[in-house]
Amino acid sequence: MTHTACPLCNTPPGTLLWQDQDCFVILTDEPDYPALCRIIWRAHVKEMSDLTAAQQCHLLHVVMQVERVLRQLLNPDKINLASLGNVVPHVHWHVIPRFHNDRHYPNPIWGAACREPADSLAARVSVDALRQALTSALANHP
Amino acid sequence: MTHTACPLCNTPPGTLLWQDQDCFVILTDEPDYPALCRIIWRAHVKEMSDLTAAQQCHLLHVVMQVERVLRQLLNPDKINLASLGNVVPHVHWHVIPRFHNDRHYPNPIWGAACREPADSLAARVSVDALRQALTSALANHP
Repeated sequence: MTHTACPLCNTPPGTLLWQDQDCFVILTDEPDYPALCRIIWRAHVKEMSDLTAAQQCHLLHVVMQVERVLRQLLNPDKINLASLGNVVPHVHWHVIPRFHNDRHYPNPIWGAACREPADSLAARVSVDALRQALTSALANHP
Repeated sequence: MTHTACPLCNTPPGTLLWQDQDCFVILTDEPDYPALCRIIWRAHVKEMSDLTAAQQCHLLHVVMQVERVLRQLLNPDKINLASLGNVVPHVHWHVIPRFHNDRHYPNPIWGAACREPADSLAARVSVDALRQALTSALANHP
């Protein structure tokens, strides 16, 4: 169940942090949001409700561990979660640590910018620390 | 665990569609997205990962039933899911049926508009049909 034209069925850009047989987690290195993590379901499925209840809970569990680890490492003012997929209709989640002085706060990152890049916080996270914390958090996942 | 200044701890605007002891579902009647549904956790909790795993799965289950029902009733091109809360840090989810000719498609609804209101689809859904389908879908929820 892969689509050759789908970028998420091929190798998505970013640094691989964790994976299992169902999904994988990457650090995306977006310019304004270098700690934005993406959780990608392996199979080419369009909507969350196309997954079984067990698959939905498993994916949520991984998303929640990413959220927890980002909170521990960065102490953001807020976490934003989103699964949109208008451009790439293949189930994936964005976990975005937000700070009161980041580029768009309090707007969504897709909204109007509230400050210039030079005046913005683009919070970075250590790949090694993130990978280690996530591997530990998901070591005993269901 | 309520905050008097929090709009989601008071009566949020919209039409109540379904509720249980933990959360409730409202139809928001946003001008460009009149079928946008919001699922609001009752307790004033900031982040999804502040909930227990069981609470997270329950909330996801409700979100998924809202998604399913909106797909059945409106057959949207895509569903968008988001839990942001930068302005109102009280756990709530947006379930947004998206159409290729809605105001912002393929952008997120918080992004740049792609067409004028007069040239856009603002898909409406029957409150009665939505309430009935959701009540049925959630009749035997865990």
